[in-house]
Amino acid sequence: MSRTVTTLTAQELAERLGGTLDHCPPDRPISEVKPLEEAGAGSVSFLANPKYAGKAKESAAGLILADPDVDLGDLPVLRLKHPYWAFARAIGWLHPEPAPDWSDAPVHASARIGEGCRIAPGATVGARTVLGKGCVLYPGVHVGDDCELGEGCELFPGVVVYRRTRLGDRVTVHANSVVGSDGYGYVLVDGHHAKIPQVGWVEVGDDVEIGACVTIDRGVLGPTRIGSGTKVDNQVQVAHNVQVGSHCLLVAQTGISGSTRLGDYVTLAGKVGVVGHIEIGSRSVVGGNSVVAKSLPEGSFVTGYPARPHREWAEAQAALNRLPRLMRQLRKG
Amino acid sequence: MSRTVTTLTAQELAERLGGTLDHCPPDRPISEVKPLEEAGAGSVSFLANPKYAGKAKESAAGLILADPDVDLGDLPVLRLKHPYWAFARAIGWLHPEPAPDWSDAPVHASARIGEGCRIAPGATVGARTVLGKGCVLYPGVHVGDDCELGEGCELFPGVVVYRRTRLGDRVTVHANSVVGSDGYGYVLVDGHHAKIPQVGWVEVGDDVEIGACVTIDRGVLGPTRIGSGTKVDNQVQVAHNVQVGSHCLLVAQTGISGSTRLGDYVTLAGKVGVVGHIEIGSRSVVGGNSVVAKSLPEGSFVTGYPARPHREWAEAQAALNRLPRLMRQLRKG
Amino acid sequence: MSRTVTTLTAQELAERLGGTLDHCPPDRPISEVKPLEEAGAGSVSFLANPKYAGKAKESAAGLILADPDVDLGDLPVLRLKHPYWAFARAIGWLHPEPAPDWSDAPVHASARIGEGCRIAPGATVGARTVLGKGCVLYPGVHVGDDCELGEGCELFPGVVVYRRTRLGDRVTVHANSVVGSDGYGYVLVDGHHAKIPQVGWVEVGDDVEIGACVTIDRGVLGPTRIGSGTKVDNQVQVAHNVQVGSHCLLVAQTGISGSTRLGDYVTLAGKVGVVGHIEIGSRSVVGGNSVVAKSLPEGSFVTGYPARPHREWAEAQAALNRLPRLMRQLRKG
Repeated sequence: MSRTVTTLTAQELAERLGGTLDHCPPDRPISEVKPLEEAGAGSVSFLANPKYAGKAKESAAGLILADPDVDLGDLPVLRLKHPYWAFARAIGWLHPEPAPDWSDAPVHASARIGEGCRIAPGATVGARTVLGKGCVLYPGVHVGDDCELGEGCELFPGVVVYRRTRLGDRVTVHANSVVGSDGYGYVLVDGHHAKIPQVGWVEVGDDVEIGACVTIDRGVLGPTRIGSGTKVDNQVQVAHNVQVGSHCLLVAQTGISGSTRLGDYVTLAGKVGVVGHIEIGSRSVVGGNSVVAKSLPEGSFVTGYPARPHREWAEAQAALNRLPRLMRQLRKG
Repeated sequence: MSRTVTTLTAQELAERLGGTLDHCPPDRPISEVKPLEEAGAGSVSFLANPKYAGKAKESAAGLILADPDVDLGDLPVLRLKHPYWAFARAIGWLHPEPAPDWSDAPVHASARIGEGCRIAPGATVGARTVLGKGCVLYPGVHVGDDCELGEGCELFPGVVVYRRTRLGDRVTVHANSVVGSDGYGYVLVDGHHAKIPQVGWVEVGDDVEIGACVTIDRGVLGPTRIGSGTKVDNQVQVAHNVQVGSHCLLVAQTGISGSTRLGDYVTLAGKVGVVGHIEIGSRSVVGGNSVVAKSLPEGSFVTGYPARPHREWAEAQAALNRLPRLMRQLRKG
Repeated sequence: MSRTVTTLTAQELAERLGGTLDHCPPDRPISEVKPLEEAGAGSVSFLANPKYAGKAKESAAGLILADPDVDLGDLPVLRLKHPYWAFARAIGWLHPEPAPDWSDAPVHASARIGEGCRIAPGATVGARTVLGKGCVLYPGVHVGDDCELGEGCELFPGVVVYRRTRLGDRVTVHANSVVGSDGYGYVLVDGHHAKIPQVGWVEVGDDVEIGACVTIDRGVLGPTRIGSGTKVDNQVQVAHNVQVGSHCLLVAQTGISGSTRLGDYVTLAGKVGVVGHIEIGSRSVVGGNSVVAKSLPEGSFVTGYPARPHREWAEAQAALNRLPRLMRQLRKG
């Protein structure tokens, strides 16, 4: 992978963002944006909500963007008014997306194409992208710059793989699906939804099959992951930073919101919706058209909106069907 | 924009459609089809439902297609049996879609490409289309005839922009999205769903971001609109003649039915469905997976199917969960 | 159509699959996999569930894959442990998908293109595919090998038609839709979801219009069918082996699960979900956002989740809205 490294000092960041440094040497070099739990000495991180101050205290971040009056002891802090927006701007400076590196050749000269690959006329492969042996790219497939595909991948017509995507071995993607598009992340600043740059990527394991017109967004800073052996049906939507385990089944028109984690062997039946930032334990089954609004332990079997244990839901539905009669009886006295 | 103008006299329309003219000079020239409220002296409009006769009386339409026995005073009327179907046929005659104007060159010779644009190999730009400065078209992008794109637009691989679409400045559209496809409009005639020609267009404001695999249909006669600063997530569907205000958030897999209007700063969370022909007031928030079946005043916060004030919905759900026990208790006496 | 015919003897199948032949001459030639009801002397079929043994007894199949101890009288059986998985493997051997037959020419030399067709630069047509008169293929359209399109079909940019698809006359498909992608079929074997090869096709009747970003999967062994005059809105998903009748309306974001059958003039309003293996009678109407979980007789009008007669659903919703107050009253005594 090729990424330009940009470095700014803490002082430069403070000047650009308009804040005050606390407990941080002004010349500290900062070259990446990271979540608190992954941050190191050269990272800037941020604390959006003062109630997570404890998490900040465990972080090794070289600099933390935070509100002016939050108490962070002697941690290195850049105090400013809108830390989430500052974080978004810092991503843009430290992780700039290079312009696409197009050439007139459909396969970029710097791409490495494995033995036995078949690349149809009208398919394109970006700069520095590596294809394993025996991959098949149908007409109109576009694989962006700096991607890595394993062996025996098959991409049907119109599939778009954004830059830096990593597919394992024997991954099949059906027509017009999109892997690696920008996640949906904005912060409201002065009445405008300012974009949080989405500079992460998508990692797909081995033996994954992805249906047609599926969308899988890249992570904000790190990966969105689809585990090995997982099968994704048509028109499924996977938001940024979602982590799907191995051997899961995501049936058609299901949508998973950002940062949610699924264990292994999870089944989401058709048209399921899952809110963000929750965990669904391994071997759970969610009935069709259900909406999962809370984390679920391993082996759950839930249905409904909001999803609850299947038996409870069935009882509530049965009771609801009898309710009009009950109300008529009560009215009669 | 280039559109062929066809003119028919009122008498010619009467002959083709098989109806009777009332209060209308037979030689009146008619050159466009318009809704009652936008119609002028050269327009033909239609009254599908006699209960809207009042609206017809305020119209300046040169000719109104209406049922044989509806009372419209001395308005100029073409009386016939199936005014909606007549309207559909009149669109086809007065607003014929020209055949696509393809050339062997990927960028049509009549297109005007702004300074600093980058057009990837395999992207195509249609006849008379204008691109502002600094637009980026990825491989496999297809922009139709007579489109106008502002400055700094970025269209990812596989994006399709149908003819006559207008995008503002700094509009980003992610891979495999479709802007300007035909709306879903048919009228049942003799057991067949006859197509209402969809000859409108799509207008997108400035600073709009559109996710992957989104579909936005053109209006029937006029525009479908997405206001400036609005952000549209993956797999959202926007039907014909929908008017979305500025700075709205339309989260993944949401669908908005025809002619519905959203104010500004409206949030529709994931998988929301909105029926047609309603209004959602500014700053309203609709919870995920809800179905909005009625107009909502400004600042509403609704959830559920059908959507109701969030607190009511939460109470009803809580009551529903207790209902099976209540019924068991009542049965015991 | 060109398909390679492979033949194996019953004995060869038994050896490859590791089972025991019963009442079947070992040299019986088997050249196709078929469902029980369509199977003939040269077909192998399978019985996944012993409770359907009756159906097996009416079958003319030359060989039936079944569990070791199911009683099938003197039917020709190959007894083995995992008949569904054996069936999947047999499909792979007897119905191998040939590699795509690409050439450098966008239209394959063996394709037959009707008079007056317009094929845009960047569109591709596969080997042995036949286009009727006056078809229009926009830029970036990909029609696979061995397809048949009738007269006057119009395929908008980015449409992908997989191999062996058959479209009738005057079929319109809007941008980025996919017709003929693999169905979603797997069988769990030793902790892996093994793929059931999807070797069927899609058949679309005359005068069908298909919206943008629609997905229609091919059948497992036979066709998925969309009847003449049916209109399919944007982002609809039709699973493998679904049979949709004539003149149906499938509104946006609706999904139909595998093997379900719709009669004629059925309307599924927006965002409807239909489970698999049921029948919806002709002239039925399903309200928006409903979930159909059971077969429906002709002329049904249902709503809700699960869908029930519209009036029942409306009553239950009204009662639910009054329920919190009722519960407060009961608590007070």
